[in-house]
Amino acid sequence: MTLSGPDTLDSGALAELDELRLSDVDKALPSAANGLTKTEFLGTQPRLSAFSTPVMVLDETAIAGNLDTMAAWCEAHGVDLAPHGKTTMSPVLWDRQIRSGAWGITLANFGQLRVAVRFGARRVQIANSLVDPTALRWLAEQMDANPELEVLMWADSPQTVDAMTAALADVTVVRPLPVLVELGGEGGRTGARSVAEAVKVAERIGESPALRLAGVSGYEGALAHDASEESLARVRTYLRSMAELHRRLEAEGRYPEGRDVYVTAGGSAYFDVVAEVLAELAGGRTKVVVRAGAYIIHDDGFYTGISPFGRGEDRQARRLTSAMHTWARVVSRPEPGLALLDAGKRDVPFDEGLPTAQAVAGQLGAAPRPLVGTEVTAVNDQHAFLRLDPARPEHDLRVGDVVRLGLSHPCTAFDKWRWIPVVGDDSDDPVVVDLIRTFF
Amino acid sequence: MTLSGPDTLDSGALAELDELRLSDVDKALPSAANGLTKTEFLGTQPRLSAFSTPVMVLDETAIAGNLDTMAAWCEAHGVDLAPHGKTTMSPVLWDRQIRSGAWGITLANFGQLRVAVRFGARRVQIANSLVDPTALRWLAEQMDANPELEVLMWADSPQTVDAMTAALADVTVVRPLPVLVELGGEGGRTGARSVAEAVKVAERIGESPALRLAGVSGYEGALAHDASEESLARVRTYLRSMAELHRRLEAEGRYPEGRDVYVTAGGSAYFDVVAEVLAELAGGRTKVVVRAGAYIIHDDGFYTGISPFGRGEDRQARRLTSAMHTWARVVSRPEPGLALLDAGKRDVPFDEGLPTAQAVAGQLGAAPRPLVGTEVTAVNDQHAFLRLDPARPEHDLRVGDVVRLGLSHPCTAFDKWRWIPVVGDDSDDPVVVDLIRTFF
Repeated sequence: MTLSGPDTLDSGALAELDELRLSDVDKALPSAANGLTKTEFLGTQPRLSAFSTPVMVLDETAIAGNLDTMAAWCEAHGVDLAPHGKTTMSPVLWDRQIRSGAWGITLANFGQLRVAVRFGARRVQIANSLVDPTALRWLAEQMDANPELEVLMWADSPQTVDAMTAALADVTVVRPLPVLVELGGEGGRTGARSVAEAVKVAERIGESPALRLAGVSGYEGALAHDASEESLARVRTYLRSMAELHRRLEAEGRYPEGRDVYVTAGGSAYFDVVAEVLAELAGGRTKVVVRAGAYIIHDDGFYTGISPFGRGEDRQARRLTSAMHTWARVVSRPEPGLALLDAGKRDVPFDEGLPTAQAVAGQLGAAPRPLVGTEVTAVNDQHAFLRLDPARPEHDLRVGDVVRLGLSHPCTAFDKWRWIPVVGDDSDDPVVVDLIRTFF
Repeated sequence: MTLSGPDTLDSGALAELDELRLSDVDKALPSAANGLTKTEFLGTQPRLSAFSTPVMVLDETAIAGNLDTMAAWCEAHGVDLAPHGKTTMSPVLWDRQIRSGAWGITLANFGQLRVAVRFGARRVQIANSLVDPTALRWLAEQMDANPELEVLMWADSPQTVDAMTAALADVTVVRPLPVLVELGGEGGRTGARSVAEAVKVAERIGESPALRLAGVSGYEGALAHDASEESLARVRTYLRSMAELHRRLEAEGRYPEGRDVYVTAGGSAYFDVVAEVLAELAGGRTKVVVRAGAYIIHDDGFYTGISPFGRGEDRQARRLTSAMHTWARVVSRPEPGLALLDAGKRDVPFDEGLPTAQAVAGQLGAAPRPLVGTEVTAVNDQHAFLRLDPARPEHDLRVGDVVRLGLSHPCTAFDKWRWIPVVGDDSDDPVVVDLIRTFF
């Protein structure tokens, strides 16, 4: 492994991505890219106008700004960051998150963990229980082979701990696997439903020869879905119970000596409340780790509405910008108030709000004019329905025009693309400075 | 190009897929597959139990049965089939559809067309207007270079035809591109909104030096979404107007002499009504082509409810079987009535109904027991919520158990996977006899 620094990913493995050969079987890539490596293709300084629709585009300036904004916020609030890497499933973007100061990467499951380890990640949190025996044995082997690899997992019941222990019974575990006890909340997702139950889980972890207790975890995002005072209060109460659990485990001496302890919560919606309630636990061997993952891309939809940077003391001071949008083409104007676009469920996210039309141009790379007052009302597999106002002359879209769509929910945007072009400037026909490879 | 028969895909290009090297960065594949070609891996006779969860699985027996069922139905009803290939985006499955007698493959856009041409498809219908100048020029070049390649496209307005003609203005078009005039319906998706308007489109196609009129197209699936009598009547009325349009174009002598003419409609929901109304137009140079694509996979949800084989005269005679399901693992049992599974929006379709739990086993490859009376109530990015009845002892799922999920909507199931294992028998731990590669 070639490592560029103490915490970064494997620069050799990342460099291999630059040498992958491109093909137009991957959506939106120009046929001129066929057979070229990514490096060779980028060397031709391709412009956005060379791509075909639909095409999802990332914005380098927005990504860099979002990385800086989140790093500054974490520093200001005394918390660590293990961004959820499921959002992008892009090792290159994970590496940038780590270089911006992130402690490590959070992931959801075994498949994602294998991608991270393949690319040299050494600090990973699986925000889930890993109970597949094959997965646990694979992980024990990897940790045995690589003393620098640290993979935290979660457990929320004694049965979960027993399943993990049983799976590792016939494996030599050189370093016991670190496990966080997960506290949940009534009506939530995973997690023990009370502090008392969670303590029993911690106890069981302590008894396992293959595991060690490494902290407390939770996901407040399962308990609320908006930024109302009621939702924020529910989140706050839940986080206080996480703090209570951590203090109790500490007081009872349940954390093994000489090892780091983690208290982790905080998706992309409430990390401000997490810092408010939990940051005071950080210090000594205890790290408070938030897991917000969407911030690097942000959006023009759900996350814009719920981002902590849109409220409270950060309202003026900090701002995330959507780093993604999609260009789609008008393929039909069958009625005065309706345009059909060539982007559908296979191309744009539709689960946390539909796309919104932001601008229109005669072709990719031409000067766009803003579009306001339109609405995407439905998506089919390969089409979007864009409703127009026939009374507004600027809504007179023509067949062949291209429409810039703002998107909601980066997680279900990224998983529809294998290579995503990154533009480096805000001209009408920007140069594509990178292609981001995803691993879904 | 190596061609195995007059209508099949390029067997050489398909064979290249067998030599692709596998990697566990692709979801669910065993780590033992790392570095092996697909052929080498299948040579080890891997069993389902070697895979990790979540894993989507295809059933060879069901695929073969569905291919036969649909071929027999088309023959019995005197219609041709150009199955919509967007469903699977798998050239290997397209090839099997063609070998089962399909006329060719239907696709939705330029990106999908490039995949088909790469794999040697020679009869393609783009069920859409292609108005991207780059796409049209590419297509003209391909048709110039390959006299056997026939790609039908649709147009639904004179402006669309003008956009196509303009894009091809500075290209030598050896064979004018075949275009079908698309008739739509009020409240539908694309398509001219009246026969009179559609005739104007046909007229404009006839005037274009780069295009030729090749028939009439429509999509009745945009006008209804269930199998009620009212919906079926609306579909029937619409199809009759398509027939009227075709007869008028024929009577007016608008179809160029000596070339095939196509009348095409029929998604997966109403192809019976299409045959009922349109089949009588077939004969001589006129082909009636249905485009149902989901039949090869079918489902345990939306398509089971709306398939023509579930009603009318075919109710007893013909049957499609779902050829897909997903195994997911129980990762948490936080409350008596709730299990969390490790499959989410990234793994299972959720747009036309949520998955349904069919069976549970202690591990992949172990004997399952049936599960009835449960409900998947929500999916998050990486989790599914499975509601259980604490009063039913058979619902006492354990952390680590694996649940077999029936799925709804193959189109949004396939696009979540790169390699999909195909099992060859119905034993508890079947041998994986193929891996299907998708191109999304």
